[in-house]
Amino acid sequence: MHKVVTFGEIMMRLNPAGYLRLSQADTLEVSYAGGEANVAVAVAQMGMPAAFVTKVPDNDLGENVIREMRRWGVDASQIRKGGPRLGVYFVEKGASQRASKVIYDRAGSSIALAQPGEFDWKAIFAGADWFHFTGITPALGDGCAQLCMEAVLAAKAAGLTVSCDLNYRKKLWSREKAGAVMSPLMSHVDVCIANESDAADVFGIQAAHSDVEAGQLDTAAYEDVARQISERFGCSRVAITLRQSISASVNVWGGMLYEGGKAHFSPSYTVQIVDRVGGGDSFAGGLVYALNSGYDAQKAVNFAAAASCLKHTLEHDFNLVSLDEVLSLMGGNASGRVQR
Amino acid sequence: MHKVVTFGEIMMRLNPAGYLRLSQADTLEVSYAGGEANVAVAVAQMGMPAAFVTKVPDNDLGENVIREMRRWGVDASQIRKGGPRLGVYFVEKGASQRASKVIYDRAGSSIALAQPGEFDWKAIFAGADWFHFTGITPALGDGCAQLCMEAVLAAKAAGLTVSCDLNYRKKLWSREKAGAVMSPLMSHVDVCIANESDAADVFGIQAAHSDVEAGQLDTAAYEDVARQISERFGCSRVAITLRQSISASVNVWGGMLYEGGKAHFSPSYTVQIVDRVGGGDSFAGGLVYALNSGYDAQKAVNFAAAASCLKHTLEHDFNLVSLDEVLSLMGGNASGRVQR
Amino acid sequence: MHKVVTFGEIMMRLNPAGYLRLSQADTLEVSYAGGEANVAVAVAQMGMPAAFVTKVPDNDLGENVIREMRRWGVDASQIRKGGPRLGVYFVEKGASQRASKVIYDRAGSSIALAQPGEFDWKAIFAGADWFHFTGITPALGDGCAQLCMEAVLAAKAAGLTVSCDLNYRKKLWSREKAGAVMSPLMSHVDVCIANESDAADVFGIQAAHSDVEAGQLDTAAYEDVARQISERFGCSRVAITLRQSISASVNVWGGMLYEGGKAHFSPSYTVQIVDRVGGGDSFAGGLVYALNSGYDAQKAVNFAAAASCLKHTLEHDFNLVSLDEVLSLMGGNASGRVQR
Amino acid sequence: MHKVVTFGEIMMRLNPAGYLRLSQADTLEVSYAGGEANVAVAVAQMGMPAAFVTKVPDNDLGENVIREMRRWGVDASQIRKGGPRLGVYFVEKGASQRASKVIYDRAGSSIALAQPGEFDWKAIFAGADWFHFTGITPALGDGCAQLCMEAVLAAKAAGLTVSCDLNYRKKLWSREKAGAVMSPLMSHVDVCIANESDAADVFGIQAAHSDVEAGQLDTAAYEDVARQISERFGCSRVAITLRQSISASVNVWGGMLYEGGKAHFSPSYTVQIVDRVGGGDSFAGGLVYALNSGYDAQKAVNFAAAASCLKHTLEHDFNLVSLDEVLSLMGGNASGRVQR
Amino acid sequence: MHKVVTFGEIMMRLNPAGYLRLSQADTLEVSYAGGEANVAVAVAQMGMPAAFVTKVPDNDLGENVIREMRRWGVDASQIRKGGPRLGVYFVEKGASQRASKVIYDRAGSSIALAQPGEFDWKAIFAGADWFHFTGITPALGDGCAQLCMEAVLAAKAAGLTVSCDLNYRKKLWSREKAGAVMSPLMSHVDVCIANESDAADVFGIQAAHSDVEAGQLDTAAYEDVARQISERFGCSRVAITLRQSISASVNVWGGMLYEGGKAHFSPSYTVQIVDRVGGGDSFAGGLVYALNSGYDAQKAVNFAAAASCLKHTLEHDFNLVSLDEVLSLMGGNASGRVQR
Amino acid sequence: MHKVVTFGEIMMRLNPAGYLRLSQADTLEVSYAGGEANVAVAVAQMGMPAAFVTKVPDNDLGENVIREMRRWGVDASQIRKGGPRLGVYFVEKGASQRASKVIYDRAGSSIALAQPGEFDWKAIFAGADWFHFTGITPALGDGCAQLCMEAVLAAKAAGLTVSCDLNYRKKLWSREKAGAVMSPLMSHVDVCIANESDAADVFGIQAAHSDVEAGQLDTAAYEDVARQISERFGCSRVAITLRQSISASVNVWGGMLYEGGKAHFSPSYTVQIVDRVGGGDSFAGGLVYALNSGYDAQKAVNFAAAASCLKHTLEHDFNLVSLDEVLSLMGGNASGRVQR
Repeated sequence: MHKVVTFGEIMMRLNPAGYLRLSQADTLEVSYAGGEANVAVAVAQMGMPAAFVTKVPDNDLGENVIREMRRWGVDASQIRKGGPRLGVYFVEKGASQRASKVIYDRAGSSIALAQPGEFDWKAIFAGADWFHFTGITPALGDGCAQLCMEAVLAAKAAGLTVSCDLNYRKKLWSREKAGAVMSPLMSHVDVCIANESDAADVFGIQAAHSDVEAGQLDTAAYEDVARQISERFGCSRVAITLRQSISASVNVWGGMLYEGGKAHFSPSYTVQIVDRVGGGDSFAGGLVYALNSGYDAQKAVNFAAAASCLKHTLEHDFNLVSLDEVLSLMGGNASGRVQR
Repeated sequence: MHKVVTFGEIMMRLNPAGYLRLSQADTLEVSYAGGEANVAVAVAQMGMPAAFVTKVPDNDLGENVIREMRRWGVDASQIRKGGPRLGVYFVEKGASQRASKVIYDRAGSSIALAQPGEFDWKAIFAGADWFHFTGITPALGDGCAQLCMEAVLAAKAAGLTVSCDLNYRKKLWSREKAGAVMSPLMSHVDVCIANESDAADVFGIQAAHSDVEAGQLDTAAYEDVARQISERFGCSRVAITLRQSISASVNVWGGMLYEGGKAHFSPSYTVQIVDRVGGGDSFAGGLVYALNSGYDAQKAVNFAAAASCLKHTLEHDFNLVSLDEVLSLMGGNASGRVQR
Repeated sequence: MHKVVTFGEIMMRLNPAGYLRLSQADTLEVSYAGGEANVAVAVAQMGMPAAFVTKVPDNDLGENVIREMRRWGVDASQIRKGGPRLGVYFVEKGASQRASKVIYDRAGSSIALAQPGEFDWKAIFAGADWFHFTGITPALGDGCAQLCMEAVLAAKAAGLTVSCDLNYRKKLWSREKAGAVMSPLMSHVDVCIANESDAADVFGIQAAHSDVEAGQLDTAAYEDVARQISERFGCSRVAITLRQSISASVNVWGGMLYEGGKAHFSPSYTVQIVDRVGGGDSFAGGLVYALNSGYDAQKAVNFAAAASCLKHTLEHDFNLVSLDEVLSLMGGNASGRVQR
Repeated sequence: MHKVVTFGEIMMRLNPAGYLRLSQADTLEVSYAGGEANVAVAVAQMGMPAAFVTKVPDNDLGENVIREMRRWGVDASQIRKGGPRLGVYFVEKGASQRASKVIYDRAGSSIALAQPGEFDWKAIFAGADWFHFTGITPALGDGCAQLCMEAVLAAKAAGLTVSCDLNYRKKLWSREKAGAVMSPLMSHVDVCIANESDAADVFGIQAAHSDVEAGQLDTAAYEDVARQISERFGCSRVAITLRQSISASVNVWGGMLYEGGKAHFSPSYTVQIVDRVGGGDSFAGGLVYALNSGYDAQKAVNFAAAASCLKHTLEHDFNLVSLDEVLSLMGGNASGRVQR
Repeated sequence: MHKVVTFGEIMMRLNPAGYLRLSQADTLEVSYAGGEANVAVAVAQMGMPAAFVTKVPDNDLGENVIREMRRWGVDASQIRKGGPRLGVYFVEKGASQRASKVIYDRAGSSIALAQPGEFDWKAIFAGADWFHFTGITPALGDGCAQLCMEAVLAAKAAGLTVSCDLNYRKKLWSREKAGAVMSPLMSHVDVCIANESDAADVFGIQAAHSDVEAGQLDTAAYEDVARQISERFGCSRVAITLRQSISASVNVWGGMLYEGGKAHFSPSYTVQIVDRVGGGDSFAGGLVYALNSGYDAQKAVNFAAAASCLKHTLEHDFNLVSLDEVLSLMGGNASGRVQR
Repeated sequence: MHKVVTFGEIMMRLNPAGYLRLSQADTLEVSYAGGEANVAVAVAQMGMPAAFVTKVPDNDLGENVIREMRRWGVDASQIRKGGPRLGVYFVEKGASQRASKVIYDRAGSSIALAQPGEFDWKAIFAGADWFHFTGITPALGDGCAQLCMEAVLAAKAAGLTVSCDLNYRKKLWSREKAGAVMSPLMSHVDVCIANESDAADVFGIQAAHSDVEAGQLDTAAYEDVARQISERFGCSRVAITLRQSISASVNVWGGMLYEGGKAHFSPSYTVQIVDRVGGGDSFAGGLVYALNSGYDAQKAVNFAAAASCLKHTLEHDFNLVSLDEVLSLMGGNASGRVQR
C-alpha cells in the first residue's frame, strides 16, 4: 500500500479568463495551487493515496483549501489552521510571442510564518512511504527551512523515500542562500528533480552548451548535470525536465531520468498549450507515482513526461488526468481522437 | 424546388466552456444536436428547405428543441411530442494530445422508444426530394429500426433520393447487430456516407493498409472500400470522410466521393479545431446539399469538404455557415483575412 | 518632451466571446476602439504622452469613451461632446479557414457629422510634437475631410510631424473619392503608413508581383511602392505592414520602413492570433512612438513590428503592452517563457 | 382560426447583467425587442398564430431578428430585408430608488427609412383577423406614418380588428406632431391601449386628479380618460394600464378595459420586478390574445393584467409565458409555490 | 461521537443563472443534489460526521458526485459505482407571482435500479448513531423500497435513531402506492418529518382548516396532524415545516416539533428568497443535527428553522452554513449587518 | 474652484457574483476600493475635482489602481509606487437573514508600511480646499498614523477644511489605541462623520438608549452624541449615518448633520439593497461634495443621504451616480420609473 505525503505552500490562484491581461479583466478565475499541493493532487488522481501538509488561516479561504484537497481525493487531515493569511498569486496567460506572467503576493502567509515543532511528523508519515517537497518551501522563511529539515529527517527515520524538486525562485531568495539551505537538505534526498536551469541557479552546476532562452537542448549536457548532482549529494536518481519554448503557445516537452549512471530520455511531445503553469509539478507528480509504483527508470520517465504533457492541455495548475489517460498517451495514442 | 427531410434523435448537449474538464466546470453550455438534426440545420443554413423529424418529450426541453429547429430555419412541424425524456450528452473538449470525450445519457429517450406507425411518412415526405438518416437511428432500439425501414420504403415510394451516414456507435449496438439491421436498410440507400472505420465496423469491409490510430490515410484503400459498399448494396454513390488526427487541436480533413466506378477526392484542409463534434455530420450536410443541387461528383465532394472544414472552426455541433462562405473557401480563399 | 495627438472616430466594439458567431451569442463583449484611438492608447501605454481628439454624444456611451481613454492614460480633455450617436461595430472572430468578420454601424455618428471650426486645433496641438490620423477620418464625411485638412495645416504650422495611415475602407468611399481627398492631405504628411493593398486602392500605386490573397510577399515590390509614395507626395518616410495570412489563426507579420531611398525590413513573426483587429494600428502606434523617440529607421521598424506582433496576442483592439515588453521581444526574446 | 399581425420596429437590445451600470459593464446581454415584436411574441407564446412585419438590414443582425422571431413561433416571412441599419437600445436596470435608464440609438434604421409601397399589405393580412401597432411606428418618420395609414386602411378593408397602443415617446416626436399624426390613424382603431400619461401627451386628454410621479391612481379619472378617447375616436374599447411605481424594484400593476360605457378593472398585483421593460407591451399582447379569443371585457382585462404581471418577473422584453401560466395566475394562484 | 448516515438519490441539478427561463438560457449552472445528500451536507457543514450512501454510474458524472460529497466534508466511501446513469433535474427559479419549476429526468438512474443486497448496511452503519432517509427513495422503484426496509431494519438493529422526511412526490408514485409502501417503513421511524401536505398525501391524515394554496397556517391543525402520525406509527417525534408562500420571492418560514404530546413552534422568518429548492431538506438537516446533539425539543425546532431560513438565502440545494451562523440567527441576530 | 483630496488605503476587492458564498465561487469579480478612494470617486462623479493619495506596489495591480482612479475622473498623479503589496479584501454578499461577510487581507500593504516624509503634502494640497481621511488610515500602522498627522497639519496650514470619517475597525486596532491616536487628530478636524457605533467604540461616547442590533434608532441620542463630539474636539459639524438593518436585503437609511448646536435629519429611505459595502463612504462623499459646494446643513445632509441611498442600489463600493441623479432623488423622485 503506497502513500505519498507532500509539504509546502498552497495559494489562491487568480487569473483572467482566456488571454485577457490583468488590466483588462473584471472577473478572475479562482483556484488553489502550489508546487507540493499540485503533486499531491496529481498522485491522488492516478489512484495512489496522497496527503498534503500545510498551514492555512482559520477563515473561509483556508477552509476552501481543505475543501479543494478533499474534493480531488487528497488527505487534508494534517493541514493546520492558524496564522495570518493565505498567499495569493496572479497568472496572466501568454500567447504566441507574449509570455505568461505570474505575480506573487505570498509574503507573510500562514505557512511562511510556521515554526519548527508545529507539525507532528511522526503522525504525518504514519502509513506513508514517500515524501516530496520542493525548493520553494525552505525559501519561504527560516522557519520553513527548519521544518523541511525536520520533515526529511523524520521521513528518512520512518523509512520513506524522499524526493525534492529544486524549483528555484529568484524572487524568494538569492542563489547563495538557496545553495546554503538546500545543500544539507539534499543529502537526505533520494530523488532530485530539476528543470534546465535549477541546478545552475542553486548549486552552480552548469549544463554545458545549453542555451535555454533559445530553446535549444543538449542531451549530453543534461546527463552531465544529473551526474554531478547525483555524485555531489548521493541522490540515487536525478530527473530533469526538458522544455523547448517555441512560443507561449507551443512547447516541446519531455524529461530525463538519470539512474545508476545512465540517462533515460522520454519521448518528447510538441504541445499546444492550454495552461503551462504547474507543468513542472505534474512531471514530479507523475515521476513520484511511477517510481513509487515500482516502474523501471525508462517507464517512469515516460510516464512522467506523458502525464505532464497532458497537464499542459488543462486549465489551472492541477493535473486532473486519470491513470488510464496517462497510460494511453504513454502507449502512443497521441492522436486526440474523440473518445465516445 | 428541393427539400430535404432527416429523421433521428436530437439531444441536449452540455459542455464546459473552453478546455475545462467536466470535473472542473460549474456551468455548462447548452445546445441541442444530433446526427440528423445537424444535417437538417446545415442544409437549411445554405438556403435549401429542410425538415427534421423526431419525437421529443412534451415539456420545456422538448419545446426548446422545436424552438432551436425553427430558429435555424428547419421545418419542425412534423416533430412529435410525447414519451419520457430527451437524451442528453456531455462533451469535454480535448486539446493537443488530450482527446475530446463524449458521455451519452440517451437511453430511454422519447425517440428511442418510438414505435412503428407513429409517424405519417406520406405527409412528412410531401414536397420533399431527399431523405437522410444515419446508422444511429436504427441503433436506438427495435422500434427505431422499424421506423427507419418504414421511412426508407416510404421515401423510395415517393420518389426521394435516400442517403445514409453509417455512423457506427459501439456503445449503442454490437457490430453483428449493426450489420444485421443496416444491411436491409442499405438496399434502399442511394448515397452511402461513412468515415474511415464505419464500413469495417458495420459490414466487415476492410480499408486495406489503413492505420487509423496513426492518422495515416491510404487513398487507394478507401476507394476499394467504397467500391465494395457500392457493389454489395447497389448504392450509386459512396462518400468517405478522410480525417488525419494530428492531435485534438489539429486535423487534416477531406473527403472522397465514389461514383460510377471513380473516386473523386477533395482537397484536404489542415484545420485548427474549435470544436470537432458534428464534423462528420457537416460533411453529410454539405454533400446532401451539393448532390441535391445537381453538382457533379468532384464539385460535390469539394463542397462537402469545404463546408465541413468550416464546421471545425465553430462551437457546438451545428454548421452555421452560409452558402457564400462555403463557396468562397471552395474557391480557394482559405487565408482567413478579415471580411469588413 | 514628446506628445502625440491623434484625431478620428472611436466606436463601441461588440464581439461574441471566443469563436462564437454573432448568431450564436447572447452576450457580447464591449470595448471602445478606432484607428486613431488605438494609436493614442498604444503610445500612452509605452509611456509617451498622448491625446485623442474626437466627438462623442453627450450620453453614457460618450462618457464611457472618455473614461476608457483616461483609464489607459490618454488625455481626453479635448474630446467634444454632442451630436447624435456613437458608431458601433461588431466583430466575429475567425479561426483557421474561417475569416473574421466586421460589421460596421457607424453612419451618422457624432464625429462623422462634425463640421469645420468645431475643434480648436491651436489648443489641441499646444505642447505636442506629432500628429497622427488615418484615411478613415476623411472618409467619414465631407466635414471630417475638411477637419483633417484643418488639422494637418495647423499641425504643420505648429511644427508637428504628421503621420497618416492610409487605411482604405471600401465601405466608406470609392477609390476615386479616396484618391481625390487623400492626395492634397498627403502633401502635408511626413510619415505615410500603408498595408499591402492601400497604396493601390487609394492612389493606384501597384505593388508589382504581389498576390495578397495567396499570402505571398515580394519585398522588392513593396520597396517600389514606398518609393512611389515618397516621390509623389514628398513623404520623408513610408512604412508598409507585411502580412501573410496563413489562416485566420496564424499570420506571418512584419513591416518595412522606407527612408532616404532605402527600405529597412523588420524581422517577421509567425503569430498565433488571439485577436487580429487593431493589428495595423498597433504597428502605426509603435512606429510613431519609435520615430518620435528618435530611433533610427531600422530600430523603428523593428520596434513597430515587435509591438504589433504582441498586439495580435491580445484581446480587443488596444495594444496594452509596455515598453519593456516590446523591447524584450525586439531584443529576440520570443520564447514566451513564464515571467515570474 | 385567429391570426394576429403586428408592424413596427425591432431593435437590438443591449443591457448589462444584473444591476451593473452601463459604465461598469464589459459584457452586455443581447436580445431583440420592440413594441410590436413584443406583442407578436406574447401572442404566439400563448398559442395563437402571429406574424411580425418590419424591415431589417440585409446582414447578420437582420438575420438574427428573423431567427429570433421564428424561434418564438412568430411568422417572419413578411419581414423585408434592406436599408442601412438595425436600431439599437441600451437598458440599464434600476433598483430601489434608482430608476432604470434606456438609451435609444434608433435613428436611420432600415424600418425608420421605409417608404410607402414597400409592403404588400394584402398578402400580409391574408388569413389574419387582427392588426396591432403602436404609436412608436408612425413616430419613426414620415414614411412610417404613411405606412401605418396604408396598413390600417388595408386591415380594415380586409375585415381585421385594429388595435393601437399609444406609447408616446417624447424623444421621437413632439406632442403636437404626435397628436396630428395619430388622430387620423385613431379613427380606424377599434381598440386603443394607453398608459396613464399617453392620452394627455398625445391628445391632451387629462386624467383628472392623477399624480403619476407620486404613484397614486385615481380610478375614476382613468375611466373618464377612456370615455373621452372612445368618444373622440370611436374606439369600441379603450384599455389603460395602471402602474404605481413604489420603486424600481416594486410596482403595483393592473389594468382597466373600458367597453360599452363601462370600465372593468383587473385585480392589481404587487410585483417584485425582474425586468420592467416590455411590461406595457405584454399587457397589449395579453389583451389582443384575450379579445381575439372572444373573452368578455372583465376576463380580457384580467387576462392582460395577469399576463403582464408575469412579464415583470422575466428578463428582457419578451413575455415568454404560456397560456397555462397566465390562466393559473388569473385563477388566483399567486403563491409562487414550486411546480414539480 | 455522533455520526449521521443518509441514503437516497443524488442528481445533477441544472439551472439557468438568475431568473432566466430554461428556454432563454444557453448556459446552465451545474450542481449535485438530492433530499438525503442535502441532509448529509447540512449536517457535515455544522461539524457532525456524516456519510451519504447511494449508487452512481461509473463515469465522470458519478465521480463528480463523489468529489462533491468529499468537498463538503461528507464521507463518500460507501457510494457504490455502477448502473446506467445519473438522474438529472432542471430548476427554473421563479420570482414574485411566477412559480419556480422543476423538471425531473431521473427514471432509470443507477440508484433507482439498485437491488436488495447491493449495500453492506452493517459496514455502513458502523460507528453511526443516526439514519435518515426520505419518502423519495422508496418511490424510486421496488428495489429501492426494499433497500429502504433493509436499511431501517439494519439501522434499528445497530441501535441507530431513524428519521424519515415524507417528501411525497406525485410524479414518482400514486398516493395509494406511497401509503402502502411507507406505512411499514414508518413503524421503524423514530422521527417523522413532513411538510404541510405530505401527511394528507401519503397517509390521508388531514390538517384540518388549512388552506395551503392561500398560504394560511393553522397551528392547531398541524399539531393535530403530528399527533395522528405519532399515534399511528409510534414515532416519538414528528416535525412539520410551516411555509406561507407570499410569493416566489417572499416566504414566511418556520417549523413545529411535536414530542411527548406537545407541539413546539419555532419563531417564523420572513425570507427574501435566493433559492428555495432544498429548503425542506435543510430543515431536516438542522433537526437531525440538533436532536442528535441532544438539544431539547424547543431548541431543536428553533435550530432547524434558523438553519433552513438561511438555506433560502443561498444558491443551489446545499445548506452551506456554519454552526456559528445558525446559532447566531437562532439567538436573534437577524439584522443581516455586515460581518467584518 | 473646489478640489477635494483624500488619503488612505485602496485594496483589490474580490467578490463572488450574486449571492454565491466564497466557498461556491470559481470566479470572483474584481474591483478596487477603500474608504477614502470611495469618497474621491463619489466627489469626482458629481463633477467636483478630486485627488486620491496612496501608495501602491510597482506592479500590474498597483497600475490597475491608478487606471481605475483615472477612469472615474480622479487625479491619480500623487499616488506613489513602491512597497511590497496591494491589500485585498473579499466580500460575500448577504441576503435576508444572512449577513454579508468581509474578509480583509491587508496587512503589510505598501500604504500600511508607508513612512512619514514619503509624501509631499504641500504639492498634494496645492489648489485644493478640502481634505478627507478616515479612521482606517491611522489604524493601518504607526507610519500611517504619523502620515495622517502630517497631512492634517499641512492641510490646515494650507487653509483646507478637514473631514474625518471615524470608521472604527476592530480588526485593525483596539478601542484604546484608536482613542489615543484619533484624539489628537480630531483636534484638527472640522467635519466629523461617524456611524451609530463609532463614537462609542473610539471615544467612549455613548448613544443613549440606542439598540443597534435591534435596528432601532433614537434620534435624540444621536444628537447628544454629536454634541459631545463637537464639544470635545471642537468640530464645527458632526454627521452621523443612521442605518436600521431590517435584514441584509432591506435597510432604512438616512443621516443627521449637527451644526451650530442643531441637528438636521435627512429623510430616511427604505432601500432594497444591491450592495451595501461602501454605503457609509458614499454618505461621506455626498456630504463633502455638498458642504464644499456651500449647501446649508439641511440641504447637505439631504444630499448626502440621497447620494448614499443610491449607492446601495449599485454593485461594488464606488458611488457611480451623477449629480443629476442625486438631485432628482433629493427632490422627491423616488419612484424608480424608467428614464427613456
